[in-house]
Amino acid sequence: MSFMNNNQPTAAILIIGNEILSGRTQDVNVQFIAKKLSDMGIVLSESCIIQDNQSQIIEFVNRLRGKYTYVFTTGGIGPTHDDITAESVARAFGVKLERNDEAVEMIKIHLEKKNKVIYENSFATAQIPMGAKLIKNSLSGAPGFNIENVYVLAGIPSIVESMFEDVEKKLKRGEKFISRSVKVFVGESIIKDILKTTQEEYDDLQLGSYPMMENEKWCTIMVIRGQRESKIENAVLELKGKLKDNNIEFSEV
Amino acid sequence: MSFMNNNQPTAAILIIGNEILSGRTQDVNVQFIAKKLSDMGIVLSESCIIQDNQSQIIEFVNRLRGKYTYVFTTGGIGPTHDDITAESVARAFGVKLERNDEAVEMIKIHLEKKNKVIYENSFATAQIPMGAKLIKNSLSGAPGFNIENVYVLAGIPSIVESMFEDVEKKLKRGEKFISRSVKVFVGESIIKDILKTTQEEYDDLQLGSYPMMENEKWCTIMVIRGQRESKIENAVLELKGKLKDNNIEFSEV
Repeated sequence: MSFMNNNQPTAAILIIGNEILSGRTQDVNVQFIAKKLSDMGIVLSESCIIQDNQSQIIEFVNRLRGKYTYVFTTGGIGPTHDDITAESVARAFGVKLERNDEAVEMIKIHLEKKNKVIYENSFATAQIPMGAKLIKNSLSGAPGFNIENVYVLAGIPSIVESMFEDVEKKLKRGEKFISRSVKVFVGESIIKDILKTTQEEYDDLQLGSYPMMENEKWCTIMVIRGQRESKIENAVLELKGKLKDNNIEFSEV
Repeated sequence: MSFMNNNQPTAAILIIGNEILSGRTQDVNVQFIAKKLSDMGIVLSESCIIQDNQSQIIEFVNRLRGKYTYVFTTGGIGPTHDDITAESVARAFGVKLERNDEAVEMIKIHLEKKNKVIYENSFATAQIPMGAKLIKNSLSGAPGFNIENVYVLAGIPSIVESMFEDVEKKLKRGEKFISRSVKVFVGESIIKDILKTTQEEYDDLQLGSYPMMENEKWCTIMVIRGQRESKIENAVLELKGKLKDNNIEFSEV
C-alpha cells in the first residue's frame, strides 16, 4: 500500500510524565498535535508516554530522533526536581545544559508585565541545552526549545498550544491529509466485504472502520483518508453505490 | 531512588490505531487501564500508540513483552481489513492464526441472545492465535485473547472495560499505589526548594508537582505517591509544616 509518498515528513510524539502513567491525568496533547500534523501533511507514526526517568528519556529521544523527521516532547520542563526533560535531552545530544540569557530575558519580561515578584528560582526554567533555539510561550513566559529535529514543549495543554504556534512556522510541510466519513447503521461485519474491495481498488487511500454504540444499537463510521480530494470523492461515491446495492442505509458525517 | 520494590509487576500499554494518530479519536483507554494498574500495584512503565501496520505491531509486541511483566494492547481486533492485530500478534509469537471454536460459540450465543441474523462474517473475529486463552466480552460477544504475558483487548472503551474485568482476576498484584495531593495557590518556582528537600528525605516516595491555571491565577498541585500510608502521611505533614513556615497558603485536595 502506497498510502504516503516518500517525501512526506514523519513525526513521533514523546509524552514525558508520571502523572499520565499513574492515571491521574488524561493526556490531551497527543490529539492536539496529531490534528495539527495531519493538517500540515506530516505523518504521525508513533506516540509514546514514558516516565520522568532520565535513562528512559535519553533512550526514547535518541531512538525517535534517528527515525523520524520530527520529534515533539511534552512535559517535564518546569522548575521543580521532577522536571528533568531539559537535562535529559541535553544528555541525549551530548551537550551541556546552560543558563540561556534569551530565556532569562523572556521570563523577566513576562513576570514584569504581570507585576510579579522575581526570585532567583523564577529563572530555573532558563536552563537550556547549548545550541538549542527557544520556542516562545506567550502564556507563562518560560520557553520551550528546539535542538536539531527535536521540539521540547511544556506539558500544560494551553501552553502546548501556545508553543505550537511558534513551532509550526518552522516545520516542513507535506501534502495535507483530508478525510471523509460515511456512517452506516449496522455493525462492522455487515460492511466488511464492501470496505475490503473498496480498499483494494484505492490502495493510495486509507480506509478505516470504527464501530460505535448509539442508542443501544451498533453503527459504524467508515473513514476514507488520503491526500487527493478527487480520489477520495471517487472512493466515497463507489462506497455509497455498493451500500445502496446492498440496501444498507447510510449518511455522510 | 528506590520508589518501587523489585518484586513489583510492571506493564506497558500498546494502543493500535490510525484513528488515534490522525487526531480523529481521543484515546481514553490508557487512563482507564493506568488507574486499574495503579490500584493493583502494577507499575505502568510506558504506553505507545502505533499505526495499524503489521511490522510495527510485531516490533512493539516483541520489544514490550520481553521487557515488562504484562503488555496490554487495545484496538484492531474487529472483523474488517484494517483489523490486523490478531494476525500480527500471532506472527510476533510465531504461531498460526486459527478459527477458535470457543470464540465461535461465544459470538453465536451473543448474537442469538440479541436476536441477530448470523452471517459467516459474524465469525471473522473468531480467528485467534493458536494456544491463546480467550478474554470475555460481555458487551458485544467477540472475545479478546491472552497469549503468554500479552493481553489483546478491543479498542472501544466500553468493551475495554468489560474485557478488563475478566483480565484483572488473572494478574499478579503488587503493593497498591496510593497518593495524597496538596494544592498551593502559587506557581511552581515558589515551592521548588520545599518540594526538593522533602523528596530528598522521602526517597521511597514519588513527589510530583503539577501547575495549573485557575481563575487566571497559577496554582500547583503537589502529589505524594507511594505504597506505605504512614510514610505518605509523614511526608504530607512535613510538607504542610514547611508551607506554613513559609506563609504559603495550601489546601488538601
